[in-house]
Amino acid sequence: MTDKIIVIDTLGSDEGAESIILGALASLNAHKDLSICLIGPKTLIESKIKELRIDPSKVEIVDTEECITNYENPMTAIMSKPNSSLVKALKKVDDDNRYIGLITAGNSGAIIMGSARFLLTKDRTRPCMAACLPNAKGSFTCVVDTGATIDVTAYQLVEFAKLGSEFMKKTYKIPSPKVGLLSNGAEPTKGNKLVKEAHPLLKEVESINFVGNIEGNKALSGDCDVLVCDGFAGNQVLKNTEGTAKLLIMDLIKYAKVNNKPEYMDAAKYLMSKYDISTLGAAIVLGIRKPILKIRGNSSSETVINATGMLLNFNAGDSLFEGKFN
Amino acid sequence: MTDKIIVIDTLGSDEGAESIILGALASLNAHKDLSICLIGPKTLIESKIKELRIDPSKVEIVDTEECITNYENPMTAIMSKPNSSLVKALKKVDDDNRYIGLITAGNSGAIIMGSARFLLTKDRTRPCMAACLPNAKGSFTCVVDTGATIDVTAYQLVEFAKLGSEFMKKTYKIPSPKVGLLSNGAEPTKGNKLVKEAHPLLKEVESINFVGNIEGNKALSGDCDVLVCDGFAGNQVLKNTEGTAKLLIMDLIKYAKVNNKPEYMDAAKYLMSKYDISTLGAAIVLGIRKPILKIRGNSSSETVINATGMLLNFNAGDSLFEGKFN
Repeated sequence: MTDKIIVIDTLGSDEGAESIILGALASLNAHKDLSICLIGPKTLIESKIKELRIDPSKVEIVDTEECITNYENPMTAIMSKPNSSLVKALKKVDDDNRYIGLITAGNSGAIIMGSARFLLTKDRTRPCMAACLPNAKGSFTCVVDTGATIDVTAYQLVEFAKLGSEFMKKTYKIPSPKVGLLSNGAEPTKGNKLVKEAHPLLKEVESINFVGNIEGNKALSGDCDVLVCDGFAGNQVLKNTEGTAKLLIMDLIKYAKVNNKPEYMDAAKYLMSKYDISTLGAAIVLGIRKPILKIRGNSSSETVINATGMLLNFNAGDSLFEGKFN
Repeated sequence: MTDKIIVIDTLGSDEGAESIILGALASLNAHKDLSICLIGPKTLIESKIKELRIDPSKVEIVDTEECITNYENPMTAIMSKPNSSLVKALKKVDDDNRYIGLITAGNSGAIIMGSARFLLTKDRTRPCMAACLPNAKGSFTCVVDTGATIDVTAYQLVEFAKLGSEFMKKTYKIPSPKVGLLSNGAEPTKGNKLVKEAHPLLKEVESINFVGNIEGNKALSGDCDVLVCDGFAGNQVLKNTEGTAKLLIMDLIKYAKVNNKPEYMDAAKYLMSKYDISTLGAAIVLGIRKPILKIRGNSSSETVINATGMLLNFNAGDSLFEGKFN
């Protein structure tokens, strides 16, 4: 084993463990100084190691076939399933400093509950989940929370704002990240109950640069570096952006084929290289001692390779997301 | 005056009354059998009628300079401002059958409160606001509510579902519109408190074809004809779709210019013709006796011309949105 080991939870993907295992093993070829610790079905993992002729000394295996599904209550599952792949993975990453981070396709709520149980920082802030999306200024907007905490309080939104702001300072070297609050109108009086309660609280926080409400059509305008929202709304921003980008790209491809315009296909490929949000593939848990990347339930092995690269970059002090989008 | 008069509230636009007045008067040239009733500053309206050499017999004027702003509490404003352009417009459209509908750029909440006060149907359903967005199947998805009622109950979501379903039956001739509930996961257990409460209620409604939860990336996949959500989330779907489409189109235009690829510019124009949501310009109030189109606060006169065309189509029994998107 090398000094940098990434823990990978191979269960929890909609596509089964195999695509995650294949991606994890392939990332060993992509990154020579990497070792991995795979949590999952030992027999399957061993057969894939042989099949791909991977050096077995680079792979630690923690055997389990139990996983936490998307249908389970996150807190109950974390407490009652100590042998689940996610709980075993969290314990492992907490184990010693050689484990630099965790990649999992598991239940978002359970990831947050598990992070809070095993990886809290000294100040015991509640962790949240963030994703960085490409914005109109050619930079990235950090959306917090993207779906880990669905029903939140105004005070939690303030915590999310602080965590997102710290993250953008650290990884994108932005001295004073602009923090916006997602709302249905730019006026400070607009919003649902939660947003109306959070707005004055955010204004009071001296450690962040609060720029007020941001409407959905400005979410990725670059008017803010951090977009604060509850997990339900943040999940909509993330997934609606993905869906809309896909809608336009697919339409362009179809139009190119039907009308025999190959140059439109090139334009579609250009857009796909920048805005195929589904292959970004990762949200990051903020506010804990080790980075955890949450990849999609339907992740391909390519996504796993990207995610290991992101964790290695992050470990080396670089931006987490930049590589993927450019 | 002809038999078809559209009432237009000329105040409430961010750009001032002038662009709305100009659009309203220009629509008289576009639609020969149309008359309009303009609610707003009489002197300004009369000067524009002269300037554009419009037949004054086609324009009824209701003089007022008072308007309801976006900063006001909707209910309080409707009750306490009988001379505001919106209240005068609502009374006018309620007046007699020749007034076929209303176009306004006013405060969404006030439009709903005013609709509920002046234009309720016999069954006294609470009205909601809907917009039809182009989907991946080449058809339209009706999003209800798009921002008129921000904090809603599960029972209100059921009403929105029924209204959206009726609307899609009537205007798009879909026999049994598929109704989806916007959530952060496809599983019935996923959602915020509101969604979890609404899901079983929607399942029980016999008059609608409920297909379950729809995630944000599937909002415009065409998997549902009606997408039910609270006004806050629906506003995000509407505006995030607009913002993301604009992000991709603008990026393509920039890339075309920088790299001198005019064929990319053509591709961008194709996308703009279908997905420039901001020029759709209208959401419709459902569940009231006369159609009300809400146009954007920053609407151009072109948007007003489109909106009058939509109301005329609707009055003639055609789809409301089809013309604009194709």
